[in-house]
Amino acid sequence: MSKYWSQLVKQTDPYVPGEQPSTSDVIKLNTNENPYPPSPEVTQAISRQLNDSLRLYPPPSVDDLRETIGDYYGVNKNQVFVGNGSDEVLAFSFMAFFDPGKPVMFPDITYSFYPVYARLFQLEARTVPLTDDFSIPVEPFFHAKGGVIFPNPNAPTGKYLNLEAIEQILIHNPDNVVIVDEAYIDFGGESAINLLDRYDQLLVIQTMSKSRSLAGLRVGYALGRNNLIEGLNRIKNSFNSYTIDRLAIAGARASFQDEAYFQKTRAKIIRTRNRVTDELKQLGFNVIDSQANFIFITHSGVNAGQLYQQLKANNIYVRYFDRPRINHYLRVSIGTDEEMDIFLNQLKNVL
Amino acid sequence: MSKYWSQLVKQTDPYVPGEQPSTSDVIKLNTNENPYPPSPEVTQAISRQLNDSLRLYPPPSVDDLRETIGDYYGVNKNQVFVGNGSDEVLAFSFMAFFDPGKPVMFPDITYSFYPVYARLFQLEARTVPLTDDFSIPVEPFFHAKGGVIFPNPNAPTGKYLNLEAIEQILIHNPDNVVIVDEAYIDFGGESAINLLDRYDQLLVIQTMSKSRSLAGLRVGYALGRNNLIEGLNRIKNSFNSYTIDRLAIAGARASFQDEAYFQKTRAKIIRTRNRVTDELKQLGFNVIDSQANFIFITHSGVNAGQLYQQLKANNIYVRYFDRPRINHYLRVSIGTDEEMDIFLNQLKNVL
Repeated sequence: MSKYWSQLVKQTDPYVPGEQPSTSDVIKLNTNENPYPPSPEVTQAISRQLNDSLRLYPPPSVDDLRETIGDYYGVNKNQVFVGNGSDEVLAFSFMAFFDPGKPVMFPDITYSFYPVYARLFQLEARTVPLTDDFSIPVEPFFHAKGGVIFPNPNAPTGKYLNLEAIEQILIHNPDNVVIVDEAYIDFGGESAINLLDRYDQLLVIQTMSKSRSLAGLRVGYALGRNNLIEGLNRIKNSFNSYTIDRLAIAGARASFQDEAYFQKTRAKIIRTRNRVTDELKQLGFNVIDSQANFIFITHSGVNAGQLYQQLKANNIYVRYFDRPRINHYLRVSIGTDEEMDIFLNQLKNVL
Repeated sequence: MSKYWSQLVKQTDPYVPGEQPSTSDVIKLNTNENPYPPSPEVTQAISRQLNDSLRLYPPPSVDDLRETIGDYYGVNKNQVFVGNGSDEVLAFSFMAFFDPGKPVMFPDITYSFYPVYARLFQLEARTVPLTDDFSIPVEPFFHAKGGVIFPNPNAPTGKYLNLEAIEQILIHNPDNVVIVDEAYIDFGGESAINLLDRYDQLLVIQTMSKSRSLAGLRVGYALGRNNLIEGLNRIKNSFNSYTIDRLAIAGARASFQDEAYFQKTRAKIIRTRNRVTDELKQLGFNVIDSQANFIFITHSGVNAGQLYQQLKANNIYVRYFDRPRINHYLRVSIGTDEEMDIFLNQLKNVL
């Protein structure tokens, strides 16, 4: 605490990201990164951009990348906003669409950055308890008094909400912006992008960090109607004109142009997830049904916090959240088959 | 305007950056980019980082780069904050150190993003008029009722304020954060970094976009006492955990390690600026004394707005601000000698 801090900074309760160990001999299953490298097209495109043009600012409105993303999803580039990772897109969205005095509604167990944003932007957070099986209940989100946001699949549970349920939430919130945070949608779910032409108030946020193996490049994006995108642009252009660097633009565009690689790697991860789920169940774990690139697991005979420490001592990093309702669970990112076999063997040793 | 926008977004008055023409046959003297490419070490370092590690998040606290910058300036890494361009550092600083209800003070003619931030964060802006010769007057900043911020050299004038004057402002503001925005300091001025060990409340912000030819990479940084840096970290970690991508980290570090190149290119720009200043004066221009990589010029016989258009029609882009007190001036970035000769010849044609 410092006398020079604003009231705002004094009130913050910053997000704590998963550890990024600097050694490479760690099996890193703690931040939902993709175990496979990005498409070779990505590194080639960045290489081509690695020239004197670095001295120039990037195009501030990122038109080319917005067009690439728009083409990929079949929408106009004016329905696309691009940011420095989906976290920046989320932060701008909280500023653009949620108002102090009107509560923002999200599940009680969810991406732990939402309450951080609510605090930073001095918004009242109203949480909706997940059901006992960790499903997002639909009716409590009807007729919200302010904005609505939830991840789909949810984090850290991995549980998916089908589009019919999301549509019910939209129908019952005609005047509130509803944000579906689809960081993990490519691992099995159907995107709410398919609802965009029917709902003015829907904003869908995705990231290139997970399914496109580009966590190190910082690109996220939002799709929505023009007036929502314009709202995001007004915030961004009041904050930082150039949020996406020239190399990230080149790499991101190339990723969307290598569909075969994208399909291949995400199918691999889904296959590994399903196999590991089966094996964990055989070991007596309860595994929440996941449509993400991670699983949320618990075992009645094992203390999750201790298991987290034991795995870490063996250079296997997973994520443990010491919070009510979920402090007997571990969140485990899906690595390569080899990494997951080491993880499974370690569990067998412990059990 | 949309019914889905927050009150905040409705109140914004976004910054408008200089044009980034997509054609390459333009002489671009409008956004103060460096005419020389970054050090070859930068592109080589990025090349080496262009590998499978892109799938991993960057280190969230950017320790390596903060250490490099700290070493360069002789401070501890805990006195260094790194952001996605100095604009992001400025935005976080407005959030971390300025409070609604306490006016933030800056010159009336200055970087036009400051009033944009003030609006976004709902701060009262109190402007101090520059003197008639565009100097920043010192006394009006004494005993401010809130934070103080100014660029040094100032933009868009290029005029430099010496450290004795800055120290007077600091002495008379023991309880207010004073931010010196040194985007252009490497082109001739002395940095207020030299005052850091005497003033707790001083924050110095710099960028790699100008003197280090890395506008396309998006890296800015702040230096200050630990508690100011901690304030910035709290905001950043409530906003976006990973703002600097892996390639930008590698490139930025390499830039600080090639001191010879840095010294050579900035000396070249200073030389060109001084020569062009002399030639413009011979053409009858009034040229504000600049310690930046741009000059602010006016001519009693020429309408600045028209000259801007004429230059643009001839593929020479400069910046014109249609605002009181400066609407008969043009801001001209210093390009290569060849570019400036074309610019000077074009002026001779017009005159």
